[in-house]
Amino acid sequence: MRVTVWNENRHEQKNPLVAEIYPQGIHTTIASFLQEAGMQVGTATLDEPEHGLTDEVLVATDVLVWWGHIAHEEVSDEIVKKVQQRVLDGMGLIVLHSGHFSKIFKELMGTSCDLKWREAGEKERLWVLDPSHPIADGIGEYIELEQEEMYGEHFDIPVPDELVFMSWFQGGEVFRSGCTYKRGNGKIFYFRPGHETYPTYHNKEIQRVITNGVKWAAPTERNRPVYGNAKPLEKL
Amino acid sequence: MRVTVWNENRHEQKNPLVAEIYPQGIHTTIASFLQEAGMQVGTATLDEPEHGLTDEVLVATDVLVWWGHIAHEEVSDEIVKKVQQRVLDGMGLIVLHSGHFSKIFKELMGTSCDLKWREAGEKERLWVLDPSHPIADGIGEYIELEQEEMYGEHFDIPVPDELVFMSWFQGGEVFRSGCTYKRGNGKIFYFRPGHETYPTYHNKEIQRVITNGVKWAAPTERNRPVYGNAKPLEKL
Amino acid sequence: MRVTVWNENRHEQKNPLVAEIYPQGIHTTIASFLQEAGMQVGTATLDEPEHGLTDEVLVATDVLVWWGHIAHEEVSDEIVKKVQQRVLDGMGLIVLHSGHFSKIFKELMGTSCDLKWREAGEKERLWVLDPSHPIADGIGEYIELEQEEMYGEHFDIPVPDELVFMSWFQGGEVFRSGCTYKRGNGKIFYFRPGHETYPTYHNKEIQRVITNGVKWAAPTERNRPVYGNAKPLEKL
Amino acid sequence: MRVTVWNENRHEQKNPLVAEIYPQGIHTTIASFLQEAGMQVGTATLDEPEHGLTDEVLVATDVLVWWGHIAHEEVSDEIVKKVQQRVLDGMGLIVLHSGHFSKIFKELMGTSCDLKWREAGEKERLWVLDPSHPIADGIGEYIELEQEEMYGEHFDIPVPDELVFMSWFQGGEVFRSGCTYKRGNGKIFYFRPGHETYPTYHNKEIQRVITNGVKWAAPTERNRPVYGNAKPLEKL
Repeated sequence: MRVTVWNENRHEQKNPLVAEIYPQGIHTTIASFLQEAGMQVGTATLDEPEHGLTDEVLVATDVLVWWGHIAHEEVSDEIVKKVQQRVLDGMGLIVLHSGHFSKIFKELMGTSCDLKWREAGEKERLWVLDPSHPIADGIGEYIELEQEEMYGEHFDIPVPDELVFMSWFQGGEVFRSGCTYKRGNGKIFYFRPGHETYPTYHNKEIQRVITNGVKWAAPTERNRPVYGNAKPLEKL
Repeated sequence: MRVTVWNENRHEQKNPLVAEIYPQGIHTTIASFLQEAGMQVGTATLDEPEHGLTDEVLVATDVLVWWGHIAHEEVSDEIVKKVQQRVLDGMGLIVLHSGHFSKIFKELMGTSCDLKWREAGEKERLWVLDPSHPIADGIGEYIELEQEEMYGEHFDIPVPDELVFMSWFQGGEVFRSGCTYKRGNGKIFYFRPGHETYPTYHNKEIQRVITNGVKWAAPTERNRPVYGNAKPLEKL
Repeated sequence: MRVTVWNENRHEQKNPLVAEIYPQGIHTTIASFLQEAGMQVGTATLDEPEHGLTDEVLVATDVLVWWGHIAHEEVSDEIVKKVQQRVLDGMGLIVLHSGHFSKIFKELMGTSCDLKWREAGEKERLWVLDPSHPIADGIGEYIELEQEEMYGEHFDIPVPDELVFMSWFQGGEVFRSGCTYKRGNGKIFYFRPGHETYPTYHNKEIQRVITNGVKWAAPTERNRPVYGNAKPLEKL
Repeated sequence: MRVTVWNENRHEQKNPLVAEIYPQGIHTTIASFLQEAGMQVGTATLDEPEHGLTDEVLVATDVLVWWGHIAHEEVSDEIVKKVQQRVLDGMGLIVLHSGHFSKIFKELMGTSCDLKWREAGEKERLWVLDPSHPIADGIGEYIELEQEEMYGEHFDIPVPDELVFMSWFQGGEVFRSGCTYKRGNGKIFYFRPGHETYPTYHNKEIQRVITNGVKWAAPTERNRPVYGNAKPLEKL
């Protein structure tokens, strides 16, 4: 399992609070716990050439993890098209938190991916709706986060293929926090938590869910189907 | 119920066989049977200014029917964006046959929308998989078409929200022929049959399915949800 | 549209608080607002012969509404089998609140249908997740109920075909409050609110949802498919 | 991974043709290829005490494979209830071919599970609809079986959570041949092929699908959720 963790890596440079929580960037924290789970993990960030997502990197990536927030528009359309093609070809994609508004997620969903939000450091409780799902493996009935940004419904996404987590927020909202999709030969998992000013990716349960998600999104051993003009398989 | 039937209207100008089957264009044939079903129907075609889809037309359309084939690339990106926004705002969309490769469908799906195909005038039998679905109202166990173009799996679409019809083809293939999706406040129905060189849209059962589909895709009476920054509904 | 509203009608006889809120029984309240919506509505209760669900009543019912709580076990297995058969034959079924534990719902679901619960008169907020669904027609972003019984996840049901509402509860739980299913030719809508000690069925928005649900669950005009031994449609 | 393969084992005793294809019973053939895939496999048959499904066997089974046909009614209701409970508690269940009419499958589905059928030794072609699904791992675009019993739509099941295979039959029918469901903590995979008079379970691709299915249905490491009366998690 070869994983690439992509991070915008801007808040960490600008905001001392974020730099304190993630001194080497959110990507490094995520890469670390995936490595501990036995995966082969690389990282890539926005300001590297080609955002660190060269053809060589992409073709050698089984699952790509994506964190972005304030610089979605700086991601080049060409790279987005390449990532989309790799997903259709079978690469898994884990979209985290504010990645809901990333070009790649919106491109794959076809909707606005908009939502309600509020930064008030309130409590979030993620309930497991799908107890037999491998992404919920090892997780109790819910995960509690003392402080998180609120994301609230309506979340303007296609109906998820599977709905693994549903969040309760102290301020009165709910949110589809763990959603799976299939696109072409690829699997996609959207997972809500992870605002940059809270230590969410240091939480062991959150790490477990992301690790489970990466395993779940691993490519199936299959070629892309053959498309285009086809000879009959039976006599006409 | 205000319906707009959009047609590329190119084959009808170039191919005498198509002109014979649809002397006034595929759009006129479709508009006629929808009108007979009591709907208020207009038409729009590629070569009209703004492809006939001005802001005035779009805002006054409850459900848009789409037929295109050889000129998908001539549809302007700006119009496609407007149609997509109208769907998210609640307008229904019926995508017919080769419209699987239209810009608007691909944009809303996020996948290649590719498939296998063959023009051999073979038999197609559309089986009803979802007997309680309103789109199957009044239809028997299957619809048989003596001659159609073959579309075969794998069809590279997101998993449909609902799968109403599955086609059997004489040459050995199957195809998800009737698929529903929701995007934003809008409903989408993809319906496979309708190659331009066969009289498919004169078939009464096919007409019934399209009419049912338009009714099903009618907008729900709701405003778009409110997105963006939100105050708490409960004390924090 | 011919509707039958079935009610256990026991709390109303025993608990003065319930009798005060629903002097003629929950069934009469529900029947009234459905009648005002133009439907032809009858009622049936547990203590009538055959629980009021004779063959004549069942065959003349397009949609059956079900409310039960403390006497699920008193419903005869024979009647349950007849109701199940009618659903498979196309009758719509609306299961309300504590009906989650009714024999008919468990029989149609195949699971325990268990959940968490608490009677504490707390606030419930039902968020619309599926804005284009006809059951959400005319409803705002959410419905707020000042006092309700809490039902919490995990709700042990099959994955709903459609998830229309998700509840937030003051005490920290979430719940899939509006779920649709198809079984045979029939449509099923489970709707959570309606504890007998709160005036929930007098709430105009709740009435609107139930009315929408009944319309949505109306039978499609179709015979049951033909099952059993079948001659080939093509030469072998 | 501990697997139990259950077989009615009646055709093998009565029909020399079946005995020739499966000299030690269908269960032994299936157990063999699962063992070769590295699983720990036991078998159980109808005529053993408790049908071979004692509490000890069930509790030590991660995934149960089920083949039955002419003796569904001889399976005791008590054992069926125990198997259902084990599925809700997390055991995987693979239902093969004529098992569509088994008590356990009907109980878990809530529908008639009826279908069209024909024994004419015709060709079946199973198309992969869900290319990223682990159950399709290592399988090409379709599996071709020269001779099989026909099963045709409408198949009276709940809408599958996932639809992995769709069959084309020479005689003109289609069928949802690979369907997944979740019930409680358990996963279910229905796989169509396997009429007793054809050597279907000797086919390497069919073996691969069943092996994939067993792996997919493995229990997630989780306790059953807590149900019943619940104290609030937040102050009321």
